[in-house]
Amino acid sequence: MTFSYDGSLYSGYQKQKDKPSIQEEIERVLSKIFNDNIKIYSSGRTDSGVHALNQTAHFDAKKIDINKLKHSINSLINNDIYVKRIKKVKDDFHARYDVVRKEYIYKINMGEYNPLKRNYIYQYNKELDIIEMNKAIKLFIGTHDFKSFSTDTNDKDTIRTIYEAKITKNKNEITIKFIGNGFLRYMVRNMVGLLIEIGSGKRKYNCVEEIFKARNRSSSGIKAPSNGLYLKSVKY
Amino acid sequence: MTFSYDGSLYSGYQKQKDKPSIQEEIERVLSKIFNDNIKIYSSGRTDSGVHALNQTAHFDAKKIDINKLKHSINSLINNDIYVKRIKKVKDDFHARYDVVRKEYIYKINMGEYNPLKRNYIYQYNKELDIIEMNKAIKLFIGTHDFKSFSTDTNDKDTIRTIYEAKITKNKNEITIKFIGNGFLRYMVRNMVGLLIEIGSGKRKYNCVEEIFKARNRSSSGIKAPSNGLYLKSVKY
Repeated sequence: MTFSYDGSLYSGYQKQKDKPSIQEEIERVLSKIFNDNIKIYSSGRTDSGVHALNQTAHFDAKKIDINKLKHSINSLINNDIYVKRIKKVKDDFHARYDVVRKEYIYKINMGEYNPLKRNYIYQYNKELDIIEMNKAIKLFIGTHDFKSFSTDTNDKDTIRTIYEAKITKNKNEITIKFIGNGFLRYMVRNMVGLLIEIGSGKRKYNCVEEIFKARNRSSSGIKAPSNGLYLKSVKY
Repeated sequence: MTFSYDGSLYSGYQKQKDKPSIQEEIERVLSKIFNDNIKIYSSGRTDSGVHALNQTAHFDAKKIDINKLKHSINSLINNDIYVKRIKKVKDDFHARYDVVRKEYIYKINMGEYNPLKRNYIYQYNKELDIIEMNKAIKLFIGTHDFKSFSTDTNDKDTIRTIYEAKITKNKNEITIKFIGNGFLRYMVRNMVGLLIEIGSGKRKYNCVEEIFKARNRSSSGIKAPSNGLYLKSVKY
C-alpha cells in the first residue's frame, strides 16, 4: 500500500506506547476491517512531525477484496492519513528490505513567518546563500560513510549512496531534494542542518569532505526541524 | 494592524464565550503588553475554520512603541496567528467602517484527497466544469441585491457591489477570487456553493439572474465549507 500523511499530530510513524503513531492508526483500521490482528511493515519510520507524500508498507491478510479495500480504509481512518493505492505483491515481498531507492524533500521558508504553513515548511525566515549550498550539496552525491550525519550510534553500516541531490527555489521557498539507496536516522535533517549553516555563512561549502572523514556526529551541524521534511517516494 | 491566521483551531474571528477566537487571542496579548484592557476592531469577522492572509484591525492604546510592538506581539501570540504590519492611524479611523474594498479567495481541490491540505483547501475531489463556472461568475460582477446569498435574515441592506470575480486553475486546484465593497454573512461561501452546483452540472450558469430576483436564500445553492476560504486583503 502507498499512503500519505500529515505527521503534525503524531509522535512519528512507528508504534509507541501511549503516543499516537501512523502505524498504530493504520493497524487499528486494518484490524477492524479484517477482524484480525494485522501488523504492517513500512519502508522505514519517519520521525515525529515528518510528513509523507508516498510512504509504503506491506501486510498479510486473508480474503482481501482489493477493489474495495482502499475505500474501506479511507472511510475509517483519521483524516490526516490517506491511502492512495493498494496492490497484491508476491509472498516474499518486504516493504523495507526490498527498497532500491527513496526520495526525501525538505522545504525551507526564507520569507516572513507564515502561520498557515507552520507545520509544513521550516520557518527559517531569513535569506540563505543558495549558490554556496548548491556547491555543498553536490559533495553528498555518491557513496560515502555517513556516520557523521547519523544520530544513532548503534548503526554499524553507515555507508549509503546518494544518487541525486539538489536545491530549487520558488519565490522565498527552497526545496532540497535527496534521492538515495537508503538513509540513516536523522540523516536528511542533519545534512539539511549543515546546508543551512553553509547557506548562512557559518561554514564553508567544502567542510563536507572533512566531516565525512571525521566519522563523528559532533563534527557536523545542527539537526533541521522535522516540519520541513517529507518522504516523497519509495521505489522497489 | 495587518495580520494573518490559520482559522482551523478557532471558532471564528469574533470573541465568543468559552470558545477560542482570533479576537480573544490578540486582545489577550495586547492587554498583557499594555497592562490594560485592550479591545480590537477588525474589518469584519471570519467564520470558524476560515483563514486570513491579511486581516486588519484597529485599537486604541497609550504609549505605543510602534517599532517594537510587532515583535512583542508575535513573541507572545499563538503560532497560528502572525502580525505582519502595524502603523499609527488617525484618531477617527475605523477598521470596519472605512473599508472600501475586500478580496476573498476560495480554493477547491478537484484532484485526489490530500491529507496535508485537509484544512487549507476544500477537498471536493471531483472534476468541475470551469467554463460553465466562469460564465456564471461574471454574472456576480456589478451592483446586485445579494439577499439570496445571505444567511442572516436580519440583514436590511443586502445590496453589494462586486468589482472583480474570476476563476483560475493550477493543475487540479482552482482558485475563485472575489473583490467587492463588502460581503454579507456567508455570502462568499454561498456564491461558491452555487458555482460548484453549476460546475457539477446540477444547474445552468444563467440561474444566477433568477436567484438574484428571488431574494430568498432557499433559491440559491449549498454553502461551501469554510476550509477553502481566505480573506486575502482589505483596502481603505
